[in-house]
This record gives sequence, C-alpha cells and structure tokens, in this order.
Amino acid sequence: MLQSELKLRRDKIRALMAGQKIDAALFTCNVNLIYTYGRVISGYLYLPLEGPAHIFIKRPNNVSGEFVHPIRKPEQLPDLLKEYGLAIPARLMLEGDELPFNEYTRLAACFPDTEILPCGTSLIRRARSVKTEMELGLFRRSAAAHARAYAQIPSVYAEGMTDRAFSIEIERLMRREGCLGIFRVFGRSMEIFMGSVLTGDNAAAPSPYDFALGGEGLDPSLPGGANGMLLKPGQSVMVDLGGNFFGYMCDMSRVYSVGRLPQQAYDAHQVCLEVQETVAAMAKPGVTGEDLYNAAIGVVTRAGWADHFMGIGQQAKFIGHGIGLEINEAPVLAPRMKQELEPGMVFALEPKIVLPEVGPVGIENSWAVTAEGLEKLTQAPEEIIEL
Amino acid sequence: MLQSELKLRRDKIRALMAGQKIDAALFTCNVNLIYTYGRVISGYLYLPLEGPAHIFIKRPNNVSGEFVHPIRKPEQLPDLLKEYGLAIPARLMLEGDELPFNEYTRLAACFPDTEILPCGTSLIRRARSVKTEMELGLFRRSAAAHARAYAQIPSVYAEGMTDRAFSIEIERLMRREGCLGIFRVFGRSMEIFMGSVLTGDNAAAPSPYDFALGGEGLDPSLPGGANGMLLKPGQSVMVDLGGNFFGYMCDMSRVYSVGRLPQQAYDAHQVCLEVQETVAAMAKPGVTGEDLYNAAIGVVTRAGWADHFMGIGQQAKFIGHGIGLEINEAPVLAPRMKQELEPGMVFALEPKIVLPEVGPVGIENSWAVTAEGLEKLTQAPEEIIEL
Repeated sequence: MLQSELKLRRDKIRALMAGQKIDAALFTCNVNLIYTYGRVISGYLYLPLEGPAHIFIKRPNNVSGEFVHPIRKPEQLPDLLKEYGLAIPARLMLEGDELPFNEYTRLAACFPDTEILPCGTSLIRRARSVKTEMELGLFRRSAAAHARAYAQIPSVYAEGMTDRAFSIEIERLMRREGCLGIFRVFGRSMEIFMGSVLTGDNAAAPSPYDFALGGEGLDPSLPGGANGMLLKPGQSVMVDLGGNFFGYMCDMSRVYSVGRLPQQAYDAHQVCLEVQETVAAMAKPGVTGEDLYNAAIGVVTRAGWADHFMGIGQQAKFIGHGIGLEINEAPVLAPRMKQELEPGMVFALEPKIVLPEVGPVGIENSWAVTAEGLEKLTQAPEEIIEL
Repeated sequence: MLQSELKLRRDKIRALMAGQKIDAALFTCNVNLIYTYGRVISGYLYLPLEGPAHIFIKRPNNVSGEFVHPIRKPEQLPDLLKEYGLAIPARLMLEGDELPFNEYTRLAACFPDTEILPCGTSLIRRARSVKTEMELGLFRRSAAAHARAYAQIPSVYAEGMTDRAFSIEIERLMRREGCLGIFRVFGRSMEIFMGSVLTGDNAAAPSPYDFALGGEGLDPSLPGGANGMLLKPGQSVMVDLGGNFFGYMCDMSRVYSVGRLPQQAYDAHQVCLEVQETVAAMAKPGVTGEDLYNAAIGVVTRAGWADHFMGIGQQAKFIGHGIGLEINEAPVLAPRMKQELEPGMVFALEPKIVLPEVGPVGIENSWAVTAEGLEKLTQAPEEIIEL
C-alpha cells in the first residue's frame, strides 16, 4: 500500500493520541494491522506520536523494508525500541477491547515503567470510522462486485430448494465475484458464516447476536441464518451476505419471493423503502444516529408496522451501523447515539419488517457520507424480485 | 443436548477446578458455551464446584429451563447468585486467553471480594482435549461427511481453472454435505476462510499464521491459501478444508494432480505416507507429542526430505495438532511437547512436503486415541489422484 495512504491513517490516529497525551500505540490485531500497515502479519506495529511507525514481525519471514524488524517475542520490544533510537513511552495504549486479557497483561508487563492504557481499540475505531478517499474507492469497488453477484441470484434458484441450498449457491456467486468469504465482526461473540438467507418464519427466530434479524441456523453451535426449510410459494426470502472483497465489509440485502406474496408484504416493503428515502434525505454531516433512528421509527409507526419492524418478539434496536474493516463500526443509527455524521463515514441502512408466515421484507444498502448528504454505494434494483 | 452429557463435561472441568482449589467458573465464550451448555447464547454459564450450573441469558429471549435465568448486564451477577442461593465464590476463574482485557476487567470488578484467576481458558481446554463418547460420535459423523465431499472433488475440476475457482467449487461441495462453514481457531490472530487449496509454488509462500502450509492468499488482508494461479499440468494441488459439520473441526487433506507429476512427487508423497504409518503405529496412550514428532522427523530425514518437510524457507514446527471445537487444541505433535496421549484425544496428523515448481504432497487424517492405539476417522483413498 502507498506510504502516503498509510501516513494519512497513522496521522489520524496520532491526532487522537495527542488529544489524550498518549505518546505511543502498539497494534497487533489483524484489522488494526490492515489499517495501519496495509496487510496482516504476525507481529506488532509500534506507532509513536512523532516519527515513523516501526513494524516488528514474527511471521512471515520474507518481509523487509525501512522500519521493518524481526522479533521473536514481545519481551524483546523495549530493547528493540532502544536499538532503533526510540524512547520508552510514558503513556502507551493497547487494544483493550480486542487483546485477550492474558496477552494484554503480558504486553503490559514488558513496559514496567510505562502507564498502559486500554483505549487503543476505541481510539483506532474512532479513526477508522471516517474513511480515506482510498478506502471509499475500495468500498465503491466492493459495492459494484456485491451488486454483480446479487444480479445473478435469480439464475441459481430452483424450485423445491431449501434456504440452505439457496444460500450455498449465492455464497458461490459471491466468491466467484471475488468475495474473500471472511466476515469480520467487532467483538468476540458475534459469529456468522458469510451472512444470512432467511425465509418464512425463520426470519422471526430470535438470535443470540445483535444482528438486524436472527434465524435459527443449522446447528446450535452456530445459531443464525438458514435453518434448512423449504422455499415455499407465498413466502419471501431475504439475502443479506457480507461483501468483503478487499477487506472492507460492504453490506446489502435484497428480497426475493417464490411466486406472488400477499399484498401486505409489498405494502410493508414499500414502508421500508420510505424509511430509506426519509433517512437518506435527512442524513448529512452534523445529523446524529439518534435523529435518523427516530425519523425511521416515525415512518414505521405512522404506517402501523412498529410491532414487526426489525423482528417480531425480539426486535433489533437499530436501523443501521457503520461498516469498514468490520461489519459493526461507528456510527450506529440507534437510540441515544449522539455521535454526529461526518464526511467519509460509511454505514449500512437496513430497515426491515418481518411478516408472520410470509417472511422478511425491506432493504439494505451501504452509504457514504459526503459534504452535502449521502452517496449510495450499492446500486441494484430494490423491489421484491419474483424467483 | 442430553443433561447427562453436559454433566459429564462439567464434571471433567470441576475435577480440574478442585485440583486448583477453584470454587467457581464463569464461561461466556462461544466454544466454551457449546461445550458446557450445548449451544451458543449471549450470556454466562456459572459453574460452581458443587451443585448445578446456572445459565444467565441476555439473548435470545426465548430460552427457558431449570437453572436458566435472564440477565441484562454482568453487574447483576452477584445479586442473581444470591437470589438463586449460590455463595459468592472465593476463587473464580475466567477465560483469560479468550476474553478481551476490558471485558475481563469489567467481569472481575463485579466480584470485588473474590480472587479472580485467568486460567479458565487453559483449564477448560484441558478438559476439552479428551473427548466424550458423544463427541467422538460427532467426529465420526463429521469425518464421514468430510470424506463424502472429498470424493466428489474430481467431478468439479475443469481444465484451465484457477486455484481460486477450484476452491470455490470444493467449498460448495463441503457446504452441500452439511459443513457449517465457520472455521474456529483458538487465538485471536489465525484467520482463515474455510481452509486452503494450494498449488505449485504458492504452497511455499510463507504465512503469518502457524498453519502447516501458507499460501499467499487473494488479498493482503487475508494472507493464506489460493492466490488465483492457474492449475497447470505437472503441478499438484492440495485440498485442506476444515470439516465443521456439527461444531467439531474435522481435518483432512488430499492431493490431486493435473496430469502426471514428476516421479519425485510420488516418492515424496510416499515418504509422507510412511511418516503417517510410523506415527500411527507408535501412537497410543502414554506416548508424547514430542516422541511422535521425532519419529516423523527421523523418517523424513532418512529419506532426504527434511529441507522440504512442512514447507520450504519457513517450515512449520509440528506434524499434528489436537482438534475439537477449535482446529488447534491439545495435544500438539511438536518438539518439547511432553503431554502424553490419552484415550479420547483426537488429533490431525499432517505430514506434508513441498516441491519447488510442483507443489505440495502428503496426507492429513483425523485420528482418535483409543485404549490400544488409534482409530482413523477420515477414511478415503490416500494416493495422489489425477484430475
């Protein structure tokens, strides 16, 4: 990756560090290495407030470059810093929300005279929430590939399919368009394979996870998504697969139907499109996630669908979420979210309604915040498509 | 899951806790919940040394049962324990190698008068390393499904394919046989999609990860596996996909060839089969991982392949690894591994050799340790199969 791009990203982190009088950061988690170094390695990126970042690599053994050094274990860090003319930091931040407790304490013990702060995750996630031009470019390319895969979805449907079989064919389409498959989520608990394909009442199955909709899944070890039920006439099926083509998690949902659906499904779908239109018209720098959430709830409540919005029984309490290297970044479009939109933020907006005995309807697109408003990244037909 | 099975597993953990005078454990990470509760939830399983386990659930909101209680946040735990007649523990273990630092310290702060021990991960992993009869049954079923998918591999090959396209078709075969797709690895850093398909010199590309072989991958954000190269005549291709059919990570590699390979590839493959035969004949309760590793290195060295064994340039320093809910459990077949095999342990044995300009050869099967020796779980032809 271009050094100028990496410097831009590192300087965004440094600006936040300066505000908290933190004089160095140590990053070792994969998403943070992708962000600050452009690739995954096993090792550490040491970012001082001033001066270049240094990279200490365990593996692979074939990486070289200025400020790139081999390392075997973290206990070597203080000596290596001295060797390369770097001061031992007074206040060092680590990735407190990502590093396991034992790994964090081992790293902290390497710096006995340093004040160790666990805010590394929250601070780099703040930096990551506003994308650079290059990151926006990767999102645009991801969104185009995502849309190309979805355009082929009707071609892989066959009568009598289960949701599982349908999901497998769509996963293949995504992979063939270049999807890397890996679905990165912030937080240790939210496990999901490439995304979810939900039909009929399975869309109402409550999930352990904070995704928009749940689904029973195929095994209690992975409770989410398709559960093996047949795609039946008169039922809807929502495809919501993650579009990780270049490391960035593009997000997009579309609804399909087996034959015609009851009229209320089209009405409810239209309400979701109205939510999208309302939110997209309001969203611009300075507007908060809470403002957008409340506007969405207003539309849905006036239309009489509040009880079926974002699930039945167990309802998700958000309508959208920031996306980036992980599927759940800032901003969050939810109650009490006072964070204001900024140009360069990217989020998924996913108003969805679940109809008993029919299934899910609604829409999800990925959007970038511009100086004036929003840019829609995922361009594809938004009506319910009959299979 | 049967209560008797869950009790068996919990009692194995309790026996290890008693040995360290730990009077309670709190589990909240997915694999540990699958092990102790039979399913993933968002919440906590509280395991006292004596008396039944209690489950505190945030989501989903439709779970009930004896000793199952709702919870909103971990700070409620002490009051809830009192409410259900449980003493506040004197020594409580948490999942120190899995819980993020900030989550661990938040949980620990809920119990200010309790000694908190970070050994929960290592202790439950010790319990998990010896499988129950039911777990062995799930492994046998996984292995059979894994072999059924691999039997179809030649049918999805087409001339002029890339390794990526071939991988996508094999992923689909695995999914159609029931593979859940999720590839669970212990440790935060080792990310991989469903497994790896490696051909030609890509098999020698060093990896950041401690997998047997590397591969460049398709993007620097996920450096491993297929890199998009063509499958060429005279080159081998190794398929090593994870077989997670019921939560248990079955492991199996087979080698295919485009046309005939140079004779040395068949010779090297035969050496790997001899390693497997040697290790399988030696392995039984009481033998250590180091013993088995040394025996393997002996075979390979005598045959003159030591420099190409488990990679070139960057060589993996193991020949096998325990498998279970994660792909990397105890025991490890590697230098300095003094842990003795026990009946009920399950491991993958994967002697592999990489040939420049040809690709990888070798074998990987999953094995269960019995009272007398080993049971081979993954039954399928082991020769190099011409595509």
